[in-house]
Amino acid sequence: MITKDTRFLIVGLGLIGGSYARALSKQGFSVDAIDLQQESLDYAKAQGMIEHGATLGNELIQQADVIILAVYPNAILPWINQHQSLIKTNALLTDVCGVKQGIVEDVQAILRSDLEFIASHPMAGKEVSGVQYADDTIFHNANFIITPTGKNTISAIECMQELAKLLGFTNISILDPMEHDKMIGFVSQLTHAIAVSLMNTNDNTHLVDYTGDSFRDLTRIARINEVLWSELFFMNKDILIREIEDFVAEINHLKNTLQNNDEKELKRLFVQATERRKLFDR
Amino acid sequence: MITKDTRFLIVGLGLIGGSYARALSKQGFSVDAIDLQQESLDYAKAQGMIEHGATLGNELIQQADVIILAVYPNAILPWINQHQSLIKTNALLTDVCGVKQGIVEDVQAILRSDLEFIASHPMAGKEVSGVQYADDTIFHNANFIITPTGKNTISAIECMQELAKLLGFTNISILDPMEHDKMIGFVSQLTHAIAVSLMNTNDNTHLVDYTGDSFRDLTRIARINEVLWSELFFMNKDILIREIEDFVAEINHLKNTLQNNDEKELKRLFVQATERRKLFDR
Repeated sequence: MITKDTRFLIVGLGLIGGSYARALSKQGFSVDAIDLQQESLDYAKAQGMIEHGATLGNELIQQADVIILAVYPNAILPWINQHQSLIKTNALLTDVCGVKQGIVEDVQAILRSDLEFIASHPMAGKEVSGVQYADDTIFHNANFIITPTGKNTISAIECMQELAKLLGFTNISILDPMEHDKMIGFVSQLTHAIAVSLMNTNDNTHLVDYTGDSFRDLTRIARINEVLWSELFFMNKDILIREIEDFVAEINHLKNTLQNNDEKELKRLFVQATERRKLFDR
Repeated sequence: MITKDTRFLIVGLGLIGGSYARALSKQGFSVDAIDLQQESLDYAKAQGMIEHGATLGNELIQQADVIILAVYPNAILPWINQHQSLIKTNALLTDVCGVKQGIVEDVQAILRSDLEFIASHPMAGKEVSGVQYADDTIFHNANFIITPTGKNTISAIECMQELAKLLGFTNISILDPMEHDKMIGFVSQLTHAIAVSLMNTNDNTHLVDYTGDSFRDLTRIARINEVLWSELFFMNKDILIREIEDFVAEINHLKNTLQNNDEKELKRLFVQATERRKLFDR
């Protein structure tokens, strides 16, 4: 359970780690942070987002009750390997990573038996990175997904639900890691793959004067952090490839409909898309 | 030239025709309208958007100095065929259609030699249709494109520029009909084909609880008027098929990059998309 004495440690003080720090410190909790960049720590301290910050931070690790790994996906396992000997008995660990399979099981397999790692995914972000953009309002109206495995306890799940509420999330759900990754493959990764590919289809930048809101909305997410997103894409590669194939089959079907002058089928496709999209209106 | 005595006739009082009527009547011009639905005319009259309305309207045609054909693309040529004998000598005709080849030349080929048809495209809209949604603020910050052919006069082009300003458009440009259709094939039609196909890729409506802004932004335009858009897609079929093929090649390249574990190339694709997208920020 989270109490007012719970000490949080955030490892990796970027946009998401910083936004966690801001939300938790606003609520009066003690928040410490570890980051490779001293200036990120200095900024967060000056802003009152953290109490203590360190680039190595062995003492901060020893004191922490809840450790939030807000680093790039590929850095999670090595960090645990290297530092878990320092962690307090019964501490709870979580992450913020956008893909779950390939992390959760691997971490749980090597973790000390008196510690618990429960994976979670705050579905929020911005098209910028860095602690200076930290902003906990991005969590409001966003989804927080907890992805427990058979190794997790009920109390850890409840603790994560509490954490999500403290961070300001309104929609909190629990999904199996595989279901999570399938969902994210469609809802998030396929959409990013489409936006990126649309921007890369020929060099159409000379059309900037003619583009309206539709094109801008569709390509907003084509501004993308290439290091983070290449890790996420490769981690979820099999699912994403399948989603791209399904989508390509669908748009090729629309193309064939045009080629065959099949007006009836084209209208059916439009009507079906319109009907489905209505469900997504807020 | 447009003067305060210029009498406008709008044929087809839907969202766009109604928005033209609203903008022009606000500026003090005499605006009449022809529509198949008496109730659309009654509404527009009650709102002060038009002076006279009629479902047939031979007299209104005879009085008009500028006729705006705001009907579905396939209805333009038949309307001209049927009614051009009534039109006043030296009247100017234009349209609002989203595709230009296949209309402009055909209309100009059959038009009386004492009349002039100059094509134009107000790049504005909403995901709804009907005069009750008429709203001339959709023209502000939008593009108005005039697509003259060798048969058009300088004075008609100037007259269209004046009209665009009266309607409230800020960006007014002149494009060759073929250039226009290529631009629209990419900027508007390909984006609609993508949004529709994404909504139609499997039935993913069960994911509604997990979707964030990215997915919503990408699919907003999947709510589509199937009659209008199937006409527009078929009219620009060859160009749109080519655009879909180029886009599919690009997203398949991204897929292959994943399949081949080519991290360097995946990052290059992300960086290129990010760089290009920056140019589109307002």
